Amino acid sequence: RVNADRLWDSLMDMAKIGPGVAGGNNRQTLTDADAEGRSLFKRWCEAAGMSVSADKMGTMFATRPGTDPDALPVYIGSHLDTQPTGGKYDGVLGVLSGLEVIRSMNDLGIRTKHPVVVTNWTNEEGARFAPAMLASGVFAGAIDLDHAYSRKDPDGKSFGEELARIGWVGEEEVGARKMHAYFEYHIEQGPILEAEEKQIGVVTHCQGLWWLEFTLTGREAHTGSTPMNLRVNAGLAMSRIIEMVQAVAMEAQPGAVGGVGQMFFTPNSRNVLPGKVVFTVDIRSPDQAKLDGMRARIETEAARICEALGVGCSVEAVGHFDPITFDPTLVASVRKAAEDLGYSHMNIISGAGHDACWAAKVAPATMIMCPCVGGLSHNEAEDISKDWASAGADVLLRAVMETAGI
Amino acid sequence: RVNADRLWDSLMDMAKIGPGVAGGNNRQTLTDADAEGRSLFKRWCEAAGMSVSADKMGTMFATRPGTDPDALPVYIGSHLDTQPTGGKYDGVLGVLSGLEVIRSMNDLGIRTKHPVVVTNWTNEEGARFAPAMLASGVFAGAIDLDHAYSRKDPDGKSFGEELARIGWVGEEEVGARKMHAYFEYHIEQGPILEAEEKQIGVVTHCQGLWWLEFTLTGREAHTGSTPMNLRVNAGLAMSRIIEMVQAVAMEAQPGAVGGVGQMFFTPNSRNVLPGKVVFTVDIRSPDQAKLDGMRARIETEAARICEALGVGCSVEAVGHFDPITFDPTLVASVRKAAEDLGYSHMNIISGAGHDACWAAKVAPATMIMCPCVGGLSHNEAEDISKDWASAGADVLLRAVMETAGI
Ligand SMILES: NC(=O)NCCC(=O)O
Ligand SMILES: NC(=O)NCCC(=O)O
Repeated sequence: RVNADRLWDSLMDMAKIGPGVAGGNNRQTLTDADAEGRSLFKRWCEAAGMSVSADKMGTMFATRPGTDPDALPVYIGSHLDTQPTGGKYDGVLGVLSGLEVIRSMNDLGIRTKHPVVVTNWTNEEGARFAPAMLASGVFAGAIDLDHAYSRKDPDGKSFGEELARIGWVGEEEVGARKMHAYFEYHIEQGPILEAEEKQIGVVTHCQGLWWLEFTLTGREAHTGSTPMNLRVNAGLAMSRIIEMVQAVAMEAQPGAVGGVGQMFFTPNSRNVLPGKVVFTVDIRSPDQAKLDGMRARIETEAARICEALGVGCSVEAVGHFDPITFDPTLVASVRKAAEDLGYSHMNIISGAGHDACWAAKVAPATMIMCPCVGGLSHNEAEDISKDWASAGADVLLRAVMETAGI
Repeated sequence: RVNADRLWDSLMDMAKIGPGVAGGNNRQTLTDADAEGRSLFKRWCEAAGMSVSADKMGTMFATRPGTDPDALPVYIGSHLDTQPTGGKYDGVLGVLSGLEVIRSMNDLGIRTKHPVVVTNWTNEEGARFAPAMLASGVFAGAIDLDHAYSRKDPDGKSFGEELARIGWVGEEEVGARKMHAYFEYHIEQGPILEAEEKQIGVVTHCQGLWWLEFTLTGREAHTGSTPMNLRVNAGLAMSRIIEMVQAVAMEAQPGAVGGVGQMFFTPNSRNVLPGKVVFTVDIRSPDQAKLDGMRARIETEAARICEALGVGCSVEAVGHFDPITFDPTLVASVRKAAEDLGYSHMNIISGAGHDACWAAKVAPATMIMCPCVGGLSHNEAEDISKDWASAGADVLLRAVMETAGI
């Protein structure tokens, strides 16, 4: 078993970097705080005897050699970046549990046949630069490197510029390395494990996603002197689209969600009807046909809503991945590890997207989950217990040892 | 009659300061561009023999002495600040027509009994700092100076700091000066005069306004892993409130409008349900009972919408003025001037708010309007013809001469 106190102390130390405003973190990707978090992680990895390198997306790979020089590495990955008002565990738990697995094997004098590589993927959250899981998407060949570099944050700064600015453009071609297996340990970010009183989620699938960025074009006009019948009101069209997305998601129950997190009005002045409204619809389902059906219906109904108001409507898909089925052998090894350790467990479908979803395209991959309080995540109040954290890390250690061979 | 070419040239010269992105202007209040516009206006006034001073709100007063040392001045006022994507005429036409009235009287060697003061009110637009017509509101005693100084722009900069920064904090107490009469000449910003083919709007009333700033409190949560039934969705509540405001305004037809121009999501990340949504509802009517009835109904229904979704709802009135009836004697003088000059005219109610509305609280006041193309304003494409501009300025000259006595 891992050292629960050491894991917890590392989580608390990392949480000091990029503090939020309400007890959580604001360590968004490619910010100074991200650079500081990367440095701390690098120091820890080197102190644990690993060598650290990076690829052209800035993804960090910390390698512990194996005994067989020809064996492909087993990867343990997640991310150290956070939402602007993020929690202390989303992503961080997975990376630092990977480190804790290495530290524990060092303590126990365990050598594995396959090397073990702890990975910190760049821009998992997608908060500054859409889409989420950007670096693992490039790694899996689903996203072009140039496209990734050109992505802009709301201030107009590009991913490529910002990666260079913080000094993390590595030499290695993205996706060059091959994986024997990929594990990712993450908090659930949903309410199921806590409600079912299970310590471990054995993650069999991940639901698919579409991020649909709507750009509605109205006519800027005075809110006071423009008669109601002469308005080309992009804000009204937006409100009808949000209500429609809600209805589409509710009708697709169970097994689907839909909502809007990001919104920009232009010129955003109290007495000007907006000329432009930009917002992103986030829809997900583990069922491919349902997911794509929701997208089609949303686009058709949005076009109708806008047409009725004379509002221009264009849609760009700024994020997407298909529903994922994880590798049955690795899933079984996670289930067996939980069983052997005496932890209660259940099969679960990931509601959030993870780098494991892209890794699964190029390697056998799976995930382990622990509960989080109230299912709350992407919120500074995100919370887990030390016991929850270490139980999942124990399962990770055992499954990785089995897969990497001792 | 005024010199139409000179008036037009001055309008075009002022429009070079703080250019917009689409042929209009971004000369928002208390920006560097505003300071530059003020300097140009001051130089022009001094060249026309006027002395320029400012009060503690930064409002500029350019005085042409009268022949009677005891007579109170006649004021001609409007504003040089613009929306972020504003037109070249909204406000500017009124100030520069005031200057043109002085220049024309200089040319003709006309002296008036009462002094004539051309006024540039600070922050009429309310785009950077709510409410609109802030300086005239303080002048009329409706708003505290300290409250005005404390108003913040979206970047958190205060009105007081920014006024000091651009160097326009005057010595004079706000509202200290008394007015014999107040005239304001403005583009209509609505479609009526153009549709009715009238050159001059004789403004008899101005509709009242409420700016209701809603702060909705939801629960930040992951858009993917949070089940639909566990969401506290402030964005959904916002969309229902916008639809409801639209319905309330439509039911109040004719003689009422309602809409939303400003919107902020927090944390504004694509995969986070917003914890906070702030937006401003703008409702107006010339009918006091209707206006206040709309406000009451909107607040009641918004509370019900939010309660049903578990969303917190608070409302602050960040802008307000009652419907205004302008001074019958001055209104008659405007009508007579239009008649004498042979300009087609009609009575009109102002749909937008103006500094004249606050001036009307402390002095006899009225307004003159000219048409604008398609009724479009608060849009960089705002447009008028040179003939439209000069016709209103001719009426202004004649009405001011009659009121100031020659
Ligand atoms: N795990 C997680 O929060 N990932 C962010 C990407 C997503 O929106 O699912
Ligand atoms: N005239 C004008 O556009 N004033 C701005 C204040 C308002 O919103 O009516």
